[in-house]
Amino acid sequence: MDDLRELAGGVRAKARNSWRIGITGPPGVGKSTIADALTAVIRERGHTVAVLAVDPSSPFSGGALLGDRIRMDRHGTDPGVFIRSMASRGHMGGLALATSHAALIMDAAGFEYVIIETVGVGQSEIEIAATADVALLALAPGMGDQIQAAKAGVMEVADIFVINKADHEGAGRLAADIRSVLHAGRAERYGWMPSIRRTVAATDEGIADLFDDIVAHREHLSSTGLIEVRRREQSEHLVRELALELVRSAIDKFAAAPDSALPALADRIAANDLDPWLGARLLLQSVVSQADL
Amino acid sequence: MDDLRELAGGVRAKARNSWRIGITGPPGVGKSTIADALTAVIRERGHTVAVLAVDPSSPFSGGALLGDRIRMDRHGTDPGVFIRSMASRGHMGGLALATSHAALIMDAAGFEYVIIETVGVGQSEIEIAATADVALLALAPGMGDQIQAAKAGVMEVADIFVINKADHEGAGRLAADIRSVLHAGRAERYGWMPSIRRTVAATDEGIADLFDDIVAHREHLSSTGLIEVRRREQSEHLVRELALELVRSAIDKFAAAPDSALPALADRIAANDLDPWLGARLLLQSVVSQADL
Repeated sequence: MDDLRELAGGVRAKARNSWRIGITGPPGVGKSTIADALTAVIRERGHTVAVLAVDPSSPFSGGALLGDRIRMDRHGTDPGVFIRSMASRGHMGGLALATSHAALIMDAAGFEYVIIETVGVGQSEIEIAATADVALLALAPGMGDQIQAAKAGVMEVADIFVINKADHEGAGRLAADIRSVLHAGRAERYGWMPSIRRTVAATDEGIADLFDDIVAHREHLSSTGLIEVRRREQSEHLVRELALELVRSAIDKFAAAPDSALPALADRIAANDLDPWLGARLLLQSVVSQADL
Repeated sequence: MDDLRELAGGVRAKARNSWRIGITGPPGVGKSTIADALTAVIRERGHTVAVLAVDPSSPFSGGALLGDRIRMDRHGTDPGVFIRSMASRGHMGGLALATSHAALIMDAAGFEYVIIETVGVGQSEIEIAATADVALLALAPGMGDQIQAAKAGVMEVADIFVINKADHEGAGRLAADIRSVLHAGRAERYGWMPSIRRTVAATDEGIADLFDDIVAHREHLSSTGLIEVRRREQSEHLVRELALELVRSAIDKFAAAPDSALPALADRIAANDLDPWLGARLLLQSVVSQADL
């Protein structure tokens, strides 16, 4: 992460040229396969592309879930394709930051498209959507109540819904469910009504159309000038997360100090001897006075 | 949330007596059904129980996913059972806080067990596990690669694995998968090797045994004194999250002010005219100097 930060700082001078495609969705819907197929289409259209598979993993589980190992064999020798898996340990802010930095580097490296893929339900997807220029929510028929799960997180931040494995039973039902959720809520994002696209990524079916949607959405944002608004909102989201990250690391440092007051504070709270909010205030005051924020 | 905070503050004087059972797992595995069946067993054993269904929802999707509406009809008239759905809007810290406060209130109200149920993959589950005295991870056979998804979040914070819908094909395979992941890692938590329990919650099958596991785990923590360690760690986690929450609300207030410097800051970052980390530092300095932290 610190390395990424340094690298990202170094490349900041150049303007942003790449278009960031975020792909999120529950496990098992085929996000990696979609990313793979989309990469092929983007290359066919003559563009370069970097793929970042972001894994909200934890210290215990170790390596990346979305490993390069099993992925994207067909692009292995293509210099116009860069593939990288990243783990974002712990909290969700880290996900946005790591992704932002990596995407910035890919941008500076001249890639025209950056695909950012992550697994998860809820917050991790919102984080990815917040850093993407276009957010794809991938779902698949017959995988339990995904709409229910997705509602909790990303129905409202998706620009394009991808119904993958659309050759399976239930694709029509899933599309209808998405439409009804979209119609029930304030679905338009930056003046764009989210599209619903059916794909069978394993056989590249529907992927060219999906890329056309991505291009149409990009043209919409550019022609209306709303891309400026979206980029500012991305930056605002990023700078807030970074500010919290600064506090978080300061608290970590405070907690790790040999003479840290945190265990005693926690003991008092556990013993009901100190109000947790007052404890938090005390902690923050100590952290702010000691840290070089 | 502010109401909860106030209420929780008011009830803080009493010692903690209730035992918090956290139930997490992907959507569709039957967490609500497990909570329902477990509630019945706990009542049969003569204890009172409160059930909190925590929904990591968002402003757009509105109401709770895990609604009371469809739930727990059989306990509707039992004064020894309290059922409540809560939404935690936005960030994950809020989930831990809202849950902590609500559980504290249930504790003060004299409930002997508090079941906290949440949906999600990853961070939300870790948050729930961090506030629970015993963390149950619910999975079900034939629902895609759940182990892969669960690894990212909660394999390492589960005290008891519940294989629900164990009458479906693949339950044995799922149990074997869990065991192999457990054996591959540092699986013991507070001196307790996570148990794996098969249930068919819809017909109450295995639920009495599951409760026996919960009681055995509780006795283990109590007899070893490790419950004190766990409670201190819970408090430490809570106070850190509260501290971040204080900063987060201060940033929100700063951002909402009519003369806020945040949009200009975001514009400069979007235009590559300001390093995001430097921007974050500036933001934080403004917030800290203005807010009453």
